Amino acid sequence: MSTTSRRVLLTGASGFIGSHCIAPLRRRGYEVVATYNARTPPAPVDGVEWLQADLLADGGAARAVAAARASHLLHMAWYVEPGKMIASPANLAWVRASLDLVLRFHEAGGRRCAVGGSCYEYDWRYGYCSEALTPCRPDTLYGAAKHGLAEALRGYALAGGLSLPWGRMFFLYGPNENPRRLVPSVILSLLRGEPALSSHGQQVRDYMHVQDVADGMVALLDSDCQGAYNIASGKATTIVSIVQALGELSGRSDLLRIGAIPARANDLPLVVGDTTAAQRDFGWQASIDLRAGLAATLQWWRERAQEPS
Amino acid sequence: MSTTSRRVLLTGASGFIGSHCIAPLRRRGYEVVATYNARTPPAPVDGVEWLQADLLADGGAARAVAAARASHLLHMAWYVEPGKMIASPANLAWVRASLDLVLRFHEAGGRRCAVGGSCYEYDWRYGYCSEALTPCRPDTLYGAAKHGLAEALRGYALAGGLSLPWGRMFFLYGPNENPRRLVPSVILSLLRGEPALSSHGQQVRDYMHVQDVADGMVALLDSDCQGAYNIASGKATTIVSIVQALGELSGRSDLLRIGAIPARANDLPLVVGDTTAAQRDFGWQASIDLRAGLAATLQWWRERAQEPS
Repeated sequence: MSTTSRRVLLTGASGFIGSHCIAPLRRRGYEVVATYNARTPPAPVDGVEWLQADLLADGGAARAVAAARASHLLHMAWYVEPGKMIASPANLAWVRASLDLVLRFHEAGGRRCAVGGSCYEYDWRYGYCSEALTPCRPDTLYGAAKHGLAEALRGYALAGGLSLPWGRMFFLYGPNENPRRLVPSVILSLLRGEPALSSHGQQVRDYMHVQDVADGMVALLDSDCQGAYNIASGKATTIVSIVQALGELSGRSDLLRIGAIPARANDLPLVVGDTTAAQRDFGWQASIDLRAGLAATLQWWRERAQEPS
Repeated sequence: MSTTSRRVLLTGASGFIGSHCIAPLRRRGYEVVATYNARTPPAPVDGVEWLQADLLADGGAARAVAAARASHLLHMAWYVEPGKMIASPANLAWVRASLDLVLRFHEAGGRRCAVGGSCYEYDWRYGYCSEALTPCRPDTLYGAAKHGLAEALRGYALAGGLSLPWGRMFFLYGPNENPRRLVPSVILSLLRGEPALSSHGQQVRDYMHVQDVADGMVALLDSDCQGAYNIASGKATTIVSIVQALGELSGRSDLLRIGAIPARANDLPLVVGDTTAAQRDFGWQASIDLRAGLAATLQWWRERAQEPS
C-alpha cells in the first residue's frame, strides 16, 4: 500500500450515521469501500465501492479487510434496533466483532482507525460530560459494551498497536433515521394528520443533525488525534422544544400531545457534551442550526410520504 | 440440567491459578470439567473430567460449553507469557474469546459465571485499590483488556444476562509458577548456587500465595455476589522483603544481589488491595502466612530440582 493512499473501509455505511459519512470522506479525498449487510447493494454512489459483509459471522471481518485493502477504517456498524439496542446481548457480539475487525485491519497493514462510541459511556448523573473529567460508569449494556470496547482498544493503542481515536456521539436526528425513533415518529404522525404523542420532554439533551455527527467522525479520523473525543453540539436542548419546533414547522401544533406518554423512571435531567477538546484538537464543531436541521428533516420525510408506496 | 447440579467448567485449569482452583471446587462439592490446551491431558485428578479446548479457535468456546454441560463457569484462562503479557495483542484475542465463552455458556443454560480480573485494572497512582472508590484507568494493554471485558460483562449482567461476579486478583507466588517470574527465578538461582539478581525492590505490592487466590475465586463463584471484588491479601509487602526471606529460608542470603537490576522507570511505589468488601460480602480472606508460603514454595521447587531431568 502506498504511504500516500487514503482508502477507507467504512462499516455500517448503509446505516443512519454511516450513510452520512460518505460525502465528507469523499470531500477529504478518501476512496471509500463501504460495507452493507443486505442481499442487494445500495444505490451506486460516485467514488464508493460497495462491499457485502457480515461482520458478525466467523471470518466476516477478515474477509472484509482482505477485500478492502484500506489504509483507514471508520467503524460505525453496531446493533441499533430501537427499543432493544440498550439491553440486547447483540451488544456483546458487536464488541467481539469489533475487536476482530480492528485486529484484522491492523494485521493487514491498516494505519488508522476511528470507532463510533457513545455518550452512553458516561455516568449521566454528572450531566455535563467532559472527556478528561467525567467518570464513565455506564448503567446500560449498550453503554458498557461501547465503553468496554473503548477500554480494550485504548489499551491496544497504548501498546503501540494502532493509531486509534474514539468518538463519543451524542443525540441525533436527521434523514434516514429509523421511523420508530423520536423525531421521525413525531414527524410521521404530523404528516399523517394524527396526534403526535410525547412525554413532558423536560429532559435536556445534546442534539445534533446526523450530518454534523458524520462530519465530526470523519474530521476525527482525518486528524492525528488519539483517545476519546465527544462528538457533540455542546448545546442544551429540551426534548419538548424539538417536538414544539416540529409542530410549528409542519403547521400542525394542534396535533401535539405533550405529556401523553409517561416519562421513563430514572431518566436523568441533563446530558450535554463538552466540545472544547474536539474544537481545540481537530478543529471540529457542529454547525447545523437546530431549527433549520429539523425543517430539512421534515422536508425529507414529506418527500418520501408523497412517494407511491 | 437439574437445578441442584453444581457442575463447573473451569478454564485455564492446567495453568498457575487454575490448577489451584480444582481442590477448593471439589471441597465445595462441584463436579469439575477442566479445560487444557496441550496435546496430552494432564494427570488424572479425582472428580475432574479433562476437556481439550482451544478457546481462541473459531467455535472453540461453543464446543467446550456443549461438551461441559455445566451450571457454573470459572473462567481463568488468559494469555500470561512473562515479559510479553502486558503489551501483547493476544490480550484483545482473549477479550473476544472470553465474550464468546460467556455468551455461549449463558445461551446453553449456564447459571453463574466468575471471571478472573486483575489489579492492573486500577489506576495505580492511587496506590490503595478499593472497588467502590479507586478509578480504573489502566495504562497497560493487559489491564485495559481485562477492564474492557469487565465493563462489557458488567453491562451484560445489568441487562439481566447472567449472574456474573469478577475477581480482581493481585500479586501471586507459589508452586507451578512460570520459572521466569520473580519468586521462582530467585529460588532457582539460589538452589543452583548462582547469584540471584534483583532490583532494589522497595516497591510495595500485595502478594499472596496462589492457593489463597484460587480459594478466593472459588469462594466468589460459590457466593451470590455480583460485580467486581478484590482478591487480595490487604498486606503491604516490599518486594525486597520477599527476596530476603527466600535468601534466609534457603540459607543462601550470600547469593542475593539486591539492586543489581535497574528498577523499571515509572514503577509505582505502592499497590495494595482493600479486602473489606470480600470479607463482608462472601466471607473470604487470604490466610497463608507469607513466610510459610514462601518456605513451602521453596520446598516445592527443591523437590523438582532433585528430580532427574
